[in-house]
Amino acid sequence: MKTKKVAIVGASGYSGEVLVQLLLNHPHAELVAVTSRSNAGQTLAQVFPKFASHPKSKTLRFVEPNAELLAKQADVVFLALPHGVAAEYAVPLVNAGCVVIDLSADFRLKSADIYKEFYAHDHPAPELLKKSVYGLPEIYREEIKKSLLIASPGCYPTSILLPVIPLLKAGLIKSAGIIADSLSGVSGAGRKAEIDYLFCECNESVRPYGVPKHRHLSEIEEQLSFAAGTKVTIQFTPHLIPVNRGILTTLYLTPEKHFCSGTGVSAVSSKSEMISMEELAEKISACYAKAYGHEPFVRLLEGKALPDTKNVVGTNVCEIAWRLDPRTGRLIVMSAEDNIVKGASGQAVQSMNLICGWPETAGLV
Amino acid sequence: MKTKKVAIVGASGYSGEVLVQLLLNHPHAELVAVTSRSNAGQTLAQVFPKFASHPKSKTLRFVEPNAELLAKQADVVFLALPHGVAAEYAVPLVNAGCVVIDLSADFRLKSADIYKEFYAHDHPAPELLKKSVYGLPEIYREEIKKSLLIASPGCYPTSILLPVIPLLKAGLIKSAGIIADSLSGVSGAGRKAEIDYLFCECNESVRPYGVPKHRHLSEIEEQLSFAAGTKVTIQFTPHLIPVNRGILTTLYLTPEKHFCSGTGVSAVSSKSEMISMEELAEKISACYAKAYGHEPFVRLLEGKALPDTKNVVGTNVCEIAWRLDPRTGRLIVMSAEDNIVKGASGQAVQSMNLICGWPETAGLV
Amino acid sequence: MKTKKVAIVGASGYSGEVLVQLLLNHPHAELVAVTSRSNAGQTLAQVFPKFASHPKSKTLRFVEPNAELLAKQADVVFLALPHGVAAEYAVPLVNAGCVVIDLSADFRLKSADIYKEFYAHDHPAPELLKKSVYGLPEIYREEIKKSLLIASPGCYPTSILLPVIPLLKAGLIKSAGIIADSLSGVSGAGRKAEIDYLFCECNESVRPYGVPKHRHLSEIEEQLSFAAGTKVTIQFTPHLIPVNRGILTTLYLTPEKHFCSGTGVSAVSSKSEMISMEELAEKISACYAKAYGHEPFVRLLEGKALPDTKNVVGTNVCEIAWRLDPRTGRLIVMSAEDNIVKGASGQAVQSMNLICGWPETAGLV
Amino acid sequence: MKTKKVAIVGASGYSGEVLVQLLLNHPHAELVAVTSRSNAGQTLAQVFPKFASHPKSKTLRFVEPNAELLAKQADVVFLALPHGVAAEYAVPLVNAGCVVIDLSADFRLKSADIYKEFYAHDHPAPELLKKSVYGLPEIYREEIKKSLLIASPGCYPTSILLPVIPLLKAGLIKSAGIIADSLSGVSGAGRKAEIDYLFCECNESVRPYGVPKHRHLSEIEEQLSFAAGTKVTIQFTPHLIPVNRGILTTLYLTPEKHFCSGTGVSAVSSKSEMISMEELAEKISACYAKAYGHEPFVRLLEGKALPDTKNVVGTNVCEIAWRLDPRTGRLIVMSAEDNIVKGASGQAVQSMNLICGWPETAGLV
Repeated sequence: MKTKKVAIVGASGYSGEVLVQLLLNHPHAELVAVTSRSNAGQTLAQVFPKFASHPKSKTLRFVEPNAELLAKQADVVFLALPHGVAAEYAVPLVNAGCVVIDLSADFRLKSADIYKEFYAHDHPAPELLKKSVYGLPEIYREEIKKSLLIASPGCYPTSILLPVIPLLKAGLIKSAGIIADSLSGVSGAGRKAEIDYLFCECNESVRPYGVPKHRHLSEIEEQLSFAAGTKVTIQFTPHLIPVNRGILTTLYLTPEKHFCSGTGVSAVSSKSEMISMEELAEKISACYAKAYGHEPFVRLLEGKALPDTKNVVGTNVCEIAWRLDPRTGRLIVMSAEDNIVKGASGQAVQSMNLICGWPETAGLV
Repeated sequence: MKTKKVAIVGASGYSGEVLVQLLLNHPHAELVAVTSRSNAGQTLAQVFPKFASHPKSKTLRFVEPNAELLAKQADVVFLALPHGVAAEYAVPLVNAGCVVIDLSADFRLKSADIYKEFYAHDHPAPELLKKSVYGLPEIYREEIKKSLLIASPGCYPTSILLPVIPLLKAGLIKSAGIIADSLSGVSGAGRKAEIDYLFCECNESVRPYGVPKHRHLSEIEEQLSFAAGTKVTIQFTPHLIPVNRGILTTLYLTPEKHFCSGTGVSAVSSKSEMISMEELAEKISACYAKAYGHEPFVRLLEGKALPDTKNVVGTNVCEIAWRLDPRTGRLIVMSAEDNIVKGASGQAVQSMNLICGWPETAGLV
Repeated sequence: MKTKKVAIVGASGYSGEVLVQLLLNHPHAELVAVTSRSNAGQTLAQVFPKFASHPKSKTLRFVEPNAELLAKQADVVFLALPHGVAAEYAVPLVNAGCVVIDLSADFRLKSADIYKEFYAHDHPAPELLKKSVYGLPEIYREEIKKSLLIASPGCYPTSILLPVIPLLKAGLIKSAGIIADSLSGVSGAGRKAEIDYLFCECNESVRPYGVPKHRHLSEIEEQLSFAAGTKVTIQFTPHLIPVNRGILTTLYLTPEKHFCSGTGVSAVSSKSEMISMEELAEKISACYAKAYGHEPFVRLLEGKALPDTKNVVGTNVCEIAWRLDPRTGRLIVMSAEDNIVKGASGQAVQSMNLICGWPETAGLV
Repeated sequence: MKTKKVAIVGASGYSGEVLVQLLLNHPHAELVAVTSRSNAGQTLAQVFPKFASHPKSKTLRFVEPNAELLAKQADVVFLALPHGVAAEYAVPLVNAGCVVIDLSADFRLKSADIYKEFYAHDHPAPELLKKSVYGLPEIYREEIKKSLLIASPGCYPTSILLPVIPLLKAGLIKSAGIIADSLSGVSGAGRKAEIDYLFCECNESVRPYGVPKHRHLSEIEEQLSFAAGTKVTIQFTPHLIPVNRGILTTLYLTPEKHFCSGTGVSAVSSKSEMISMEELAEKISACYAKAYGHEPFVRLLEGKALPDTKNVVGTNVCEIAWRLDPRTGRLIVMSAEDNIVKGASGQAVQSMNLICGWPETAGLV
């Protein structure tokens, strides 16, 4: 398979670091450039001692970001930059014919208005919104293959969309009333020198934040609306927990049909809307099996197993388990992922693999 | 004030340890006996080096539990035992005229049938269920003062009941559809030698458990039903997070009346059921101020502050904050407490203070 | 006992926070002023939600530091400031007749030259060095009582000096070849927005730093030299470990006399310099019992117990245990303390208690 | 390259788990059997959900250990068993012609007497001690290639021997007076249900243990004695710190020759034994470069960098840095490794690679 040259713009943050790790060890990609204003001039080995055993780490140096130069050096460019800034690089790189995989929020929304509502500034390049594809391979695999501009999904959205979209598409749950309660490791806040993310402020601490309107709601709701075919508004509460990496999301969903069981309580308005708990369970099971049974990066848990971030950290896998609660009539779905891998850099590499025609799992197992 | 003699049965677990700490330093209680089968014969200082600076720690020794003997030695007996076992001690101690403060689940429910449903064995002393008072001082202060048998609430229930009961009583929220998503530190699992709670199994891990029917549901729902005047069934999902102590609960509630705001979206079936967001916010604020404005151990957060377990760990305080979400029409309430203090031993001491006629905050600030 | 008015300059760091906590709850001190440039105007409750239950937290507001004003308001002023800056406040406050308890390094050394060698700038007020007393109460109790300027010891020095000074004074160990290997929680780095102390940089990480010449060496060696009556040079290696609070120090010492045991190996140059292991153990035991047997804040561990930071965090206690190693002829001494309490703010309050004629343990148990 | 069949006896502990991970992904080894008394009958995916994405995890089931059967199934057998038990399997497997790589202490010592002194029982198979090779590839590469019985080194020993052996062999340091102060993550205690290793007992705790005579001393001293050509006795203090994985060792060594520098202090008995600090630094640097400059799994840190466990966890690399201290005349060497990889399972795989004639780094990068 033909090797491609890849570059990372903004390679010194946590997502950038994992991109470096994945691309240094990728069988078909050749990492040719890494940029970072603060680390320009230093080698990979100096900035990331953990990669020092890789031969390239002693020779590849961080440089100041320069879109023109990058366009000449690289076939594929990853942008691990803040929103607003990413678009500044995406525009010239796309115009120069590079494949751009953007890990920021800049191209995730189809609506520039919603972008402005959630990000508090005008969209920097609205003309590109039509060209970009939301880089969730399990949902948009074919579109990704044909795109030159990938908007790689946010970490929270990935943990919510993967479990919910198949159920919505299959009409198994109501599109109203969805609640997503998410717990994230501290790396989600980025490698920023802020008091709030100091060790002593996060260790032995658990706290909600961004209640009730976190920015990630915009892309979650847009994607769920596409899946449901109707406007979806959800409740989303993120919490910060003292782990380095990992997101655990618990979803509270309402089945489209009431269900009942021997031990359950279920208020039923009409026989025709009713379903047995066993039958509903089979439908959900079949829905997930169809959606993800052959996906390399979605693990459907069986038996008594429930998701645990420690089983996915360091991998590109999203674990999913679910339970029907006959007492409340709800469906509880739980997911776990590594917020920096499946929730960011791993998924971005997965998109690259699709675009380049490589095995989707290349460099990810 | 007259000093009373107190004993702790089962003093070597995490709740027992905090009881020892609180009672060693209590201005009116004199700790006269601590029991533990596994540590019998050892001094407090040997079992808990951290208390070794207290003069009594070198002389007070753990003994085998013996209800008859305890009844002679102590005016007040705390039971920090597993459910089922606690009742074996409570019966003779209550009969002997001791004040019994039970930290187990044995006397929390009024219904022996629900006890059996959730704890999988017959209630060991159903005749005492009528005598016991649920030891949540902010709700049952007057009843506690007159009782000889206190069923001190569970840790999760405390974090849920304190925020929800005033809203239900005031008719501000619907009793249906309540969701409680809780995150607990590992001490909640007790000082038990089990693989699941080893450092390496919990550190860098976040996981749900007991989905969808955790035992604490029984007392939560019974108490919420009392408050609502109707049977309440809730959704409750506990999660284990890598901190020693602390519970953070996020509650998803539906206001009784639809509310709307300039920016919000609100489907309204009839004008008369509608309320402005500002008006509803004032009602909630007034409800909490009335319920807890003068409570020493409930902290109503103001402004942008949200609960954080690190602000309550080591104290008997429960923090509460809330947000109305005009996008979804929901009320989000968040609480934080120390699961071993307000969620167990501190609250038990608070009940003792009430029964003994001491200041409610004695030994707790 | 007469109450005194106290102020804290630089109250928003970790040491400042613990000073606030201790002084809010002190039976004889009245906290009248807290300063912080960044938090000026905010109440204690706003900056430290965990103190919000204290009545004074809603009224006491942070102000800009102003030595003249502080001198009028307070009898005792604590300085929780960086070295170099502390002296700027100490000079006018001492001149105005205040008791000044400085938690910085500015007045810990008697030699302005050594200060310059280790802190890389001229001493800002060398004339005060003669007036200041090193605030280690177990060693300088009488001097502290008579002083108006206390140089409260550093966290590492406290954990090293308490175990070593009695042995040196008693001539039980050689003054040459001392090694101190210390492990500190991250709060020791202060509440500073630096990448190195972010949660994700410290969690799941252990690392040495400041090798081989950490600044604290200057005061450690000066104090050990006073105790030994000869110049002492030691080896000191600090390490950063992922806990919030706590220092664990392991000391490698050489007994003045060779010792031997039945199982041990001991190269002895002359019979007269030799001692049996049992006899040496008794001497060490007696030395520590004499030095600390009645000290409220030093805990001499017995039997198989070894220090553990979790047994001292949140207290003003320093735990000490020791072992003779007949295989190597060395004495291993281990200590544990809370770096912010006995290693900083608690010890500073202990000095205040002595100066003010209050019980030494007031507000500290 | 020809694939070999490998088995793991005792695959459910932490070392076993990492062996499973490494062997499932090894390019030349085929994992054919995993044994565990407690998990017999379950698949790899059931016991280790994190490996569930590997195709073999659904079919390979744990079985009861049976040496005879294993000898038929596997070319190479890893023993991840307690000492004493490992030998029971090693004897029949070696006799049957299998390559045995033992991760226990059973074959690490050449002296059955020292084994008995440190492990408190007779050596179970002293006749095999002559056949076994100490599996530290950087030191015994050629011997390993020819051996059928590898005694894979302990975690602490690896972190001490790699930095010290080259210095001793080169005569650069004295063999007397060596001190090793080590900090280990909790996985070093194994996956055992013991109170001491519960999350709440280890989190926010730092503590020494096994002072002054830890079992690992036996193999450390035997190996150092081989390197020095004289009997070496060292001081070794292990500490438990709250991380999952990683060992950080700080070594206090004395150069064979006194050294001096412009700023240093150095008591010199005779000119001929003296050396300049710069010259000594060059010799040490050259010694390490010669020993490890081409080693794939030893990383010699340069410039200001110091070891940090977070840079080696998950890898088979041991980081080494050193500093000369002109104030004390000592050489401080620091190392970091993953206790379960380079300190156990990774190193065991490295030995297998050598024996089987595969690239030494196969399956380890």
